[in-house]
Amino acid sequence: MREAFHDQLDGIFEDLAAICGLVETAVHDASSALMTGDVHLAEQVISADDAIDNAREKVEDNAFALLSLQQPVAGDLRVVVSALRMVTELERMGDLSVHVAKIARLRVPHVAVPEEMRATMERMAEVAEDMVRRVRSIIADRDVEAAIELGRDDEIMDQLRRRGFNELLSKDWPHGVEAAVDIALLGRYYERIADHAVSVANRVIFVVTGEQVSRD
Amino acid sequence: MREAFHDQLDGIFEDLAAICGLVETAVHDASSALMTGDVHLAEQVISADDAIDNAREKVEDNAFALLSLQQPVAGDLRVVVSALRMVTELERMGDLSVHVAKIARLRVPHVAVPEEMRATMERMAEVAEDMVRRVRSIIADRDVEAAIELGRDDEIMDQLRRRGFNELLSKDWPHGVEAAVDIALLGRYYERIADHAVSVANRVIFVVTGEQVSRD
Repeated sequence: MREAFHDQLDGIFEDLAAICGLVETAVHDASSALMTGDVHLAEQVISADDAIDNAREKVEDNAFALLSLQQPVAGDLRVVVSALRMVTELERMGDLSVHVAKIARLRVPHVAVPEEMRATMERMAEVAEDMVRRVRSIIADRDVEAAIELGRDDEIMDQLRRRGFNELLSKDWPHGVEAAVDIALLGRYYERIADHAVSVANRVIFVVTGEQVSRD
Repeated sequence: MREAFHDQLDGIFEDLAAICGLVETAVHDASSALMTGDVHLAEQVISADDAIDNAREKVEDNAFALLSLQQPVAGDLRVVVSALRMVTELERMGDLSVHVAKIARLRVPHVAVPEEMRATMERMAEVAEDMVRRVRSIIADRDVEAAIELGRDDEIMDQLRRRGFNELLSKDWPHGVEAAVDIALLGRYYERIADHAVSVANRVIFVVTGEQVSRD
């Protein structure tokens, strides 16, 4: 009984890591589409989101089957519920990548990010992608050390977002309101991807140690 | 046993409705602070968010106790997990109200919303507050009809957001990049509050009927 429970739980965590891999691709491709104005790549990110949604449903079904059949209590119960929360957050990170891809698509044949914002925005995209990649192995290896480290690095994204705002606001911005709005929303989307990455990593800490990591 | 389960579940739903009441106040006060530049009211929204977070923890503890002690299966299990998801979304709606309040506070002694955007932004705030108010009674009364209706009205918020963008982009916007960025982010925050409201209402439909309401 206990062994069956842990085997099934391992299966769920493998699925979560696989979904995180899909999200990593989504963040990467959406960012490429954004920086190059590649409409086909943007479309691909948008249509690939169904696979993430379907994978999320599979994890939910398995988690409910596990709860129903194995009737876990206390710690085990919280682990399964954590897995349900993690999959919701991973799906949301996929949705946010779709939002990035949609801004890219909207501005084709132009590129949404003006030249002087490129460095900051590329850096945000890299940091987001890197965080998602790390979350994937944090889930796969239940790596508490790496999860704690990820939480610390979240500050980098906040600094980038502030830098982006300063660039938007301090110069005599020549690109008009449309580009400014795009940049503000893109910054928000990358920041949210990073927030969710940290939150998923914190849930791994909880799953392994039983300790809640509080944030605000 | 079954009776104890349903009594405790009723208690959880009462707590969810009460949290939704706190969120309603947060949305209302944040919007007032935004439209008037009232820094004290903005601060109040920001500090009142702790009460929502604490109430969320209480609901989570009760839901886990219910799962552990009563070991519900199948339908009942999904209802308790739905309650856990609802409380996460309600807390998030509180966070989004804090984001609105922080933009209000940042612009004091000025008002973040320029005169010609006022009508649209006030309407967004009203629609968001109205949706939260309705979700509160949808939770309290397990009102499936009202929940279905709420899902239909979500389109109003989407239209308002598009109208806001058109106002930002079509005119010769005289208020500079900072105000444009504020408006873009405020529009996003209100839209997300509305999205979560619809999602919570859909979970009530699921709790009562067992039918999943899919969106997208």
